Amino acid sequence: MSRAIYLDENEFPKSFYNVLPDLPEKIPPYVDPKTKEPASLEAMAALFPIELLKQEMNYDDRSIPIPAELREVYIERLLRPRPLVRATNLEKHLGLPPDVKIFYKREDLSPTGSHKPNTAVAQAYYGMKEGVKGYATETGAGQWGSSLAYAGMLFGMDVEVFMVRCSYEQKPYRKVMMNMFGADVKPSPSDTTQVGRKFLAEGRSSGSLGIAIAEAIERAVTTGKKYSLGSVLNHVCLHQTIIGQECIEQMKMADETPTHVFGCFGGGSNFAGIAFPFYELNRNKKAGIRLIAVEPDTVPSLTKGKYEYDHGDSAGLTPLIKMHTLGKDFMPPPIYAGGLRYHGAAPSVSLMVKHKLVEAQTVSQADVNPMAELFAKSEGIIPAPETTHAIAAVVRTALEAKRKGAAATLLFNFSGHGLLDMAAYEKPGGAGQKK
Amino acid sequence: MSRAIYLDENEFPKSFYNVLPDLPEKIPPYVDPKTKEPASLEAMAALFPIELLKQEMNYDDRSIPIPAELREVYIERLLRPRPLVRATNLEKHLGLPPDVKIFYKREDLSPTGSHKPNTAVAQAYYGMKEGVKGYATETGAGQWGSSLAYAGMLFGMDVEVFMVRCSYEQKPYRKVMMNMFGADVKPSPSDTTQVGRKFLAEGRSSGSLGIAIAEAIERAVTTGKKYSLGSVLNHVCLHQTIIGQECIEQMKMADETPTHVFGCFGGGSNFAGIAFPFYELNRNKKAGIRLIAVEPDTVPSLTKGKYEYDHGDSAGLTPLIKMHTLGKDFMPPPIYAGGLRYHGAAPSVSLMVKHKLVEAQTVSQADVNPMAELFAKSEGIIPAPETTHAIAAVVRTALEAKRKGAAATLLFNFSGHGLLDMAAYEKPGGAGQKK
Repeated sequence: MSRAIYLDENEFPKSFYNVLPDLPEKIPPYVDPKTKEPASLEAMAALFPIELLKQEMNYDDRSIPIPAELREVYIERLLRPRPLVRATNLEKHLGLPPDVKIFYKREDLSPTGSHKPNTAVAQAYYGMKEGVKGYATETGAGQWGSSLAYAGMLFGMDVEVFMVRCSYEQKPYRKVMMNMFGADVKPSPSDTTQVGRKFLAEGRSSGSLGIAIAEAIERAVTTGKKYSLGSVLNHVCLHQTIIGQECIEQMKMADETPTHVFGCFGGGSNFAGIAFPFYELNRNKKAGIRLIAVEPDTVPSLTKGKYEYDHGDSAGLTPLIKMHTLGKDFMPPPIYAGGLRYHGAAPSVSLMVKHKLVEAQTVSQADVNPMAELFAKSEGIIPAPETTHAIAAVVRTALEAKRKGAAATLLFNFSGHGLLDMAAYEKPGGAGQKK
Repeated sequence: MSRAIYLDENEFPKSFYNVLPDLPEKIPPYVDPKTKEPASLEAMAALFPIELLKQEMNYDDRSIPIPAELREVYIERLLRPRPLVRATNLEKHLGLPPDVKIFYKREDLSPTGSHKPNTAVAQAYYGMKEGVKGYATETGAGQWGSSLAYAGMLFGMDVEVFMVRCSYEQKPYRKVMMNMFGADVKPSPSDTTQVGRKFLAEGRSSGSLGIAIAEAIERAVTTGKKYSLGSVLNHVCLHQTIIGQECIEQMKMADETPTHVFGCFGGGSNFAGIAFPFYELNRNKKAGIRLIAVEPDTVPSLTKGKYEYDHGDSAGLTPLIKMHTLGKDFMPPPIYAGGLRYHGAAPSVSLMVKHKLVEAQTVSQADVNPMAELFAKSEGIIPAPETTHAIAAVVRTALEAKRKGAAATLLFNFSGHGLLDMAAYEKPGGAGQKK
């Protein structure tokens, strides 16, 4: 059996797996903050393409076919299916016994280096079909912005990205990448929106994700563009389920069933992408696979947040979402993993945590720090700072199984590489510091 | 027919293609600068593992089997075979007619982002088999150093890299990557070698590739380590021929024969890797495929250099090599493509240029500048600055064929991505500058 497990192109999933019909209760609706009434599809249509809203609120169809044209993009552009790899060298480094095994899915092998393009190309495709002129979006460190820029380039669609100003200035390479894909990138707050000018006038020029969301939403509604989100929402998690579906086929080829499936957790999309199809397996086959969302202990939305209605952004512009939240005013500490600094959580995953269908675990900065170097030195790939959180939980579980003499087959989503985040590993305490 | 063409793992080449027996004359021997006699295998054994020297001087066997253990590393670690892609979007951007086609080989899909690990893992493997303790090497911008660091990590071998000090200070991320793979990286000139201390005392502290080579060689001979080179030499080009062999099978699957094969040209290894197997096809099948090495017009070793004996390094420490050279004292201008700033050329390619079996072309900085953005905007991948030189020649040839109404099938080696070179695209005149 080879270390790397491939699928043929024709084995790429034919549909997305929609978890909504399989949840133990109907997911609570989005609520209009003014009327306190459920936000209707029609009301949200100013922001999102209709087809994405239909997916967002589809409580009936667990299988949503992937159109042939979009499927071709996944296969020919994103080079899916992507390999699943047995972490033989990491196992050796950890001294694991033969019945403690680790597998990971190579989502870093995308044009922008993470799983984000999986939903970006779908959003651009459905938007293009409806004649959407362009998207406005926000980005923190730039992973999402560069993925939507890439997708917009593929479908000939304008993309405008409001990038939190401190990242815009400190992390110029993601901005360069977005520009190269043809996107327009503005530091946020910018002087091109009302809300941006307001924050600038208040002296809050270094920006925040909340301000950037507000600017993107204003741009979308005032120009007839649409707004796009890279995580949290149901349709985003839906698109990412191609990851887990591929993994199920690949684990079969390896003649293995995972006992644990891990993903790091920020808004929820990479975790949902790998975990939801295994949730379906749990339901249908009583597989008993533990699904584990891993968050930093400094941003503990699933483990310490309240399950209640809150805004998706800090400025209070989005509909209210029932989710695990630390409160929209929560100020996350400046951890390197920008993708995990979010106060809320996907409403689908939140509901599953409430019903104990998904476990949430935290890892500390001390757990996480050695992981990038450990993975680079064993498996030879430099993980994104976000991904190191999943690795930390996997390593902890593997060593625990070893100690107890228990068997375990651990699968995790290697959600992205760290090649554009090397600064994180250069700083004191980061990996890559020569002792 | 899919845009991306894959091979199965079992279709990965079983042997390297050795071009030496197929050359029209015996390649001139390396010459000892002191005795002016051909350098013997024994004399060079202080620097290189015996097996690599045997490959270097093998004039008899055109096929050199790849050991099973090494083949496994290519398949399971470097994820070979790598896809070949039809550049359908680039063709569309250029408005090419249906009979002008462009294909490219995805060598960027390696752990360090370029073709360099193809020879690094082979050198580490053969070294390990002979009990070599470790390698010392030099690196300019860091591509080669990080690839050997990766290979050393795989085979449990010490790697020490002397990195030209100005790159060490200006391009910290490659250094961080090498450290993460466990290599020891020193800015060169360093105070850890005699020759380094000499240059430091002379005030030449910013360093050069010539000085770094000198330090690596000194370290190798004084510590019983071996010395390793990432390009130029016959055995390096030999290992890279897996690229072209895969391409031949993939072009067959696409039911196409290339009319032109391109690679950018610095020391020669990525060009040789894709071109040599097609040279064999030209010999055996009279295929008439044009093999085109593309160099910057500011470092024109193949097009303007003399074919004569010269040192491989600027310090005059290596044996004399018969090659196209601009002279060991040639000072290349500070172009972004660090991998193409070399005064000499692979002796094998030099001989083929002499016999008009390989064509050399130059591209200007003005030709090259728009290529990174063009490729990002069409194919969605950000090329390394080196690779943009090959793209510029491909685009020129494609547009010429279009103008003439001629058919052409162009294949080039997409030798690496630019994710760790984004600074090059940020500067004035680089791609990624917002107009």
